[in-house]
Amino acid sequence: MAAPRVLLTGASGFIGSQAVAPLVGRGYEVHALGRRPVAGAVWHEVDLLDTRAAAAVAAEVEASHLLHLAWYAEHGRFWHAGENLDWVGATLALLRAFAEAGGSRAVLAGTCAEYDWRQPVAFCRELDGADGPATPELPATVYGTAKHATRLVAAAYADAAGINLAWGRVFLLYGPGEDPRRLVPSVARALLAGEEAAASDGRQIRDLMHVDDVARGFAALLDSEVEGPVNVASGEPVTILEVLELIAAASGRPELLRPGRLPRREGEPERLVAATARLRGEAGFEPQTPLADGIEATVEWWRDRRTG
Amino acid sequence: MAAPRVLLTGASGFIGSQAVAPLVGRGYEVHALGRRPVAGAVWHEVDLLDTRAAAAVAAEVEASHLLHLAWYAEHGRFWHAGENLDWVGATLALLRAFAEAGGSRAVLAGTCAEYDWRQPVAFCRELDGADGPATPELPATVYGTAKHATRLVAAAYADAAGINLAWGRVFLLYGPGEDPRRLVPSVARALLAGEEAAASDGRQIRDLMHVDDVARGFAALLDSEVEGPVNVASGEPVTILEVLELIAAASGRPELLRPGRLPRREGEPERLVAATARLRGEAGFEPQTPLADGIEATVEWWRDRRTG
Repeated sequence: MAAPRVLLTGASGFIGSQAVAPLVGRGYEVHALGRRPVAGAVWHEVDLLDTRAAAAVAAEVEASHLLHLAWYAEHGRFWHAGENLDWVGATLALLRAFAEAGGSRAVLAGTCAEYDWRQPVAFCRELDGADGPATPELPATVYGTAKHATRLVAAAYADAAGINLAWGRVFLLYGPGEDPRRLVPSVARALLAGEEAAASDGRQIRDLMHVDDVARGFAALLDSEVEGPVNVASGEPVTILEVLELIAAASGRPELLRPGRLPRREGEPERLVAATARLRGEAGFEPQTPLADGIEATVEWWRDRRTG
Repeated sequence: MAAPRVLLTGASGFIGSQAVAPLVGRGYEVHALGRRPVAGAVWHEVDLLDTRAAAAVAAEVEASHLLHLAWYAEHGRFWHAGENLDWVGATLALLRAFAEAGGSRAVLAGTCAEYDWRQPVAFCRELDGADGPATPELPATVYGTAKHATRLVAAAYADAAGINLAWGRVFLLYGPGEDPRRLVPSVARALLAGEEAAASDGRQIRDLMHVDDVARGFAALLDSEVEGPVNVASGEPVTILEVLELIAAASGRPELLRPGRLPRREGEPERLVAATARLRGEAGFEPQTPLADGIEATVEWWRDRRTG
């Protein structure tokens, strides 16, 4: 039997660039759609926002599987940018073209920003279950709303078109190659450069997963038959301050850390931690990288890239 | 001051073709985007599914207003067709291009199929109010879900982009020029041809509005400052059987009517009637065509077009 063939989007992005290896490891022939080639995958050069061109590639590849990670992610801007609207359209067009070309299993990337953040819960639960009710989906941003709306349409369409669809919700993540303006790299790089690193008070509780585990989690989810929303996250609560202190220790300059110097981002929840019964129990995935090890390796990765 | 300029989509469609006159009557310069020209409007030939081409037209026209009625409407097929996904993308792309070109007021067409039909309510209410809670939105079709999802994203984006947006939900409508496969024309044409007209039992309760009133209602809504979802409907309950009997009487062949001969469409609600406090009270619109008069005139319109 021929290898299953997966269309992968976002393959040159933060998660996607770590996804090729686990997909290949699971026996997939990986076809990357995007503007940049990636090692280990057949590259189809296409702008996914050119929905007709992307659909033509999907029709040509006739993949059995789709792993769609691409979305607009410009740091800071993405929360309320109009680009989110384009990605709703691009995502749905790609899903349709994939299904019409005979595809049978799709996994699309969602976000913790789909949940209602106004009333924090201990663990954000995807569905009603024996351990409690589903966490309401009431996004407060254009980004969260666009993802939420895409999921609703994708699920209804998958049902009508007879394809099998899961929706992997990403929480916080970190690791080599992250946008340097984001929390972990910006603090690590400041400390490595011998500069003060300002941060918020850090008492927010979060769910942080190493990008390798996120990518492997998506590959495991794709390889399963689990349908519907699935948090792709660690399920382990950690305060931002603990994360900052791990970075500070790994950088060797803990005295330069300045928690409390910056305000929190408006609308941030106190606590945002995933329920992971679906990912662990149903998709059978276990993360491999303990937070302390992952942060230490990430700080080392940035140390190796210091140019100043 | 220059006339306000409105981008109109779906202008060659059932509602849209009746919308040009009331818009012109209210002082708008009407710019129709689509594949066919319409009288009374400046025509911009464009396929709205070619989102970049449509965005380029919106950028060029720099309209102050947008009335977006276009959507996939192939009789029977539209409930679960993949084309609904394309129209989510086309709608959001157009809205974004309109806003970025300086637009300030948009009205988009929604549907009664956004509401939860499983537990019929006396009147489908758009928002929580003194007269009762909002009717839940839980569409059971790809079409209803696509419209619902589009509204969520459009509303979040409008809020972030600082434009004023209303969402006009259409219920049942009828009038000259309707797709001949739909209920009123198909029964009218059969009876006028001296053939039996089979129908369902007809005890379903519906909200039926003449297409002229629907189009005038959209023009009134556009001209108002009402935001959010607004039912564009009569608010007057009528059974399908009463409608059939009006058609039969107007055609002069009541003895050929065969109610109960056909099954109902799967998933149809018993009752589907709009609350109209927002349309009447807030947008200040009153429909002009009583049902009996409208049905009689519509049957006459079909009589004049008999070719057999």
